[in-house]
Amino acid sequence: MQTLTSNWEVSALVRQWQRDGERIGFVPTMGNLHEGHLRLVKAARQNTDRVVVSIYVNPMQFGPREDFTNYPRTLESDLQKLTNLKVDLVFHPSDESMYPEGSAKSSYVEVSTQLTEGLEGAHRQHHFRGVATVVTKLFNIVSPDVAVFGEKDYQQLLVIQQLVKDLNYPIEIIGEPTIREGDGLALSSRNQYLSKQQRAIAPKLYDVLSETRERILMQNMDLTDLEQAAIMQLEQHGFAPDYVAIRNAVTLAEADNPTDLLVILAAARLGQTRLIDNLRV
Amino acid sequence: MQTLTSNWEVSALVRQWQRDGERIGFVPTMGNLHEGHLRLVKAARQNTDRVVVSIYVNPMQFGPREDFTNYPRTLESDLQKLTNLKVDLVFHPSDESMYPEGSAKSSYVEVSTQLTEGLEGAHRQHHFRGVATVVTKLFNIVSPDVAVFGEKDYQQLLVIQQLVKDLNYPIEIIGEPTIREGDGLALSSRNQYLSKQQRAIAPKLYDVLSETRERILMQNMDLTDLEQAAIMQLEQHGFAPDYVAIRNAVTLAEADNPTDLLVILAAARLGQTRLIDNLRV
Repeated sequence: MQTLTSNWEVSALVRQWQRDGERIGFVPTMGNLHEGHLRLVKAARQNTDRVVVSIYVNPMQFGPREDFTNYPRTLESDLQKLTNLKVDLVFHPSDESMYPEGSAKSSYVEVSTQLTEGLEGAHRQHHFRGVATVVTKLFNIVSPDVAVFGEKDYQQLLVIQQLVKDLNYPIEIIGEPTIREGDGLALSSRNQYLSKQQRAIAPKLYDVLSETRERILMQNMDLTDLEQAAIMQLEQHGFAPDYVAIRNAVTLAEADNPTDLLVILAAARLGQTRLIDNLRV
Repeated sequence: MQTLTSNWEVSALVRQWQRDGERIGFVPTMGNLHEGHLRLVKAARQNTDRVVVSIYVNPMQFGPREDFTNYPRTLESDLQKLTNLKVDLVFHPSDESMYPEGSAKSSYVEVSTQLTEGLEGAHRQHHFRGVATVVTKLFNIVSPDVAVFGEKDYQQLLVIQQLVKDLNYPIEIIGEPTIREGDGLALSSRNQYLSKQQRAIAPKLYDVLSETRERILMQNMDLTDLEQAAIMQLEQHGFAPDYVAIRNAVTLAEADNPTDLLVILAAARLGQTRLIDNLRV
């Protein structure tokens, strides 16, 4: 496994592989890898000849009061895990090489507002701008044939699919299902921020989503009432919910047709830690 | 010479060339090709193995009161000229394939404000957003090694260079000098909008730029005074000037240092026709 920090070396190496007729799989990460990430890497491996993983905590997608500084950075153990999975190349750039003039002065990519203005976009200003911009930059450096993202960040996955479509990237996007702990908690680097007590409460987020799904399937309540009920349940468990939303699973628009494919999305805080999760119906 | 309208066919063909070890040169145009464009094509030919030219009048870079509808479309004669220059591939997409949901709903690319907010950006709202977005889309479809732009659109050339740097495209940008008529008028598709009388006045734009350059080199006047003098001269010739600006030739910032490399940029209207030109000092 090679580890490179230079954009140009990555571009040159990947393009050499492509000249040799090999297909490139790409998994962009912020490091601190868990089983969820490793599943993405395995999916890339199954679909391509070479797997590239990027490890980069992207400042542009964090708000000024968010956890950019404290975000867990565990490069050595990440590299060991990726070596074990026979990843071909890890790209680990510096902030200076990614944003030489600072991320605030960089050109940026904005994905159409219908997908980005609500939910995470409403609670994390310019978050999706930061995500779309860094993914664009990484796509340009790596030029993958396939890129793999986790369904845990469901809205992000849809935003990336829209980005690829709108900006004409000849890249296939694969979404991989969320990996959960035995008690239902979705794997996330941010889980390690939780105190023992908060960790005991955290799986209730998935429980509430699951119960909401059951109620939707029983068709015995209005969707807005179900959202309100879920928010109250979360509050009773000790969460401070940002939102629970039952949306069209393709467009994230308000669900107005009983035959829509639906997804339930939620974000809720436990102390300083913000957890998100989702469940398709 | 092949002519393709499908994004996917272009991507597939170019990537096959790249797998064969060939370097790709790209010239994006809005068609209605004149000697200025042909010079760009020749530059691409000199630097690469395969030349791709796109012909696409991009609605996203035109304002609501601009000349999108009337912009001259001359596909047959354009194709003949490109055949004569032994271009390998012409990409001529439809609006439906470039913006399936309309350009207003598309994801877009915004280049940092220092370069884009003044001059053309101040007079043509969202113009550079449209340019940056379509160039990004075309770069993603064609994935060139080299792309060639004209210096006549000087601010646009700098915006593209910044875009490539900020979004990490491994693409070399070449700027080619402006081609002029014998009387100094810069070649432009919009020149054909001019009446005979306006056409007689039009070369004065270049004359005023040239005279301003002489005065700068003589160092006998304040730059702001020179800008004002040039605007008055243009008005006396019958133009309605949008701006004459003497700027740092690299950053387009106000020139504050006598050792700066300078460029004089101007935009002025003759009736409904808006002409732009520039001259480096």
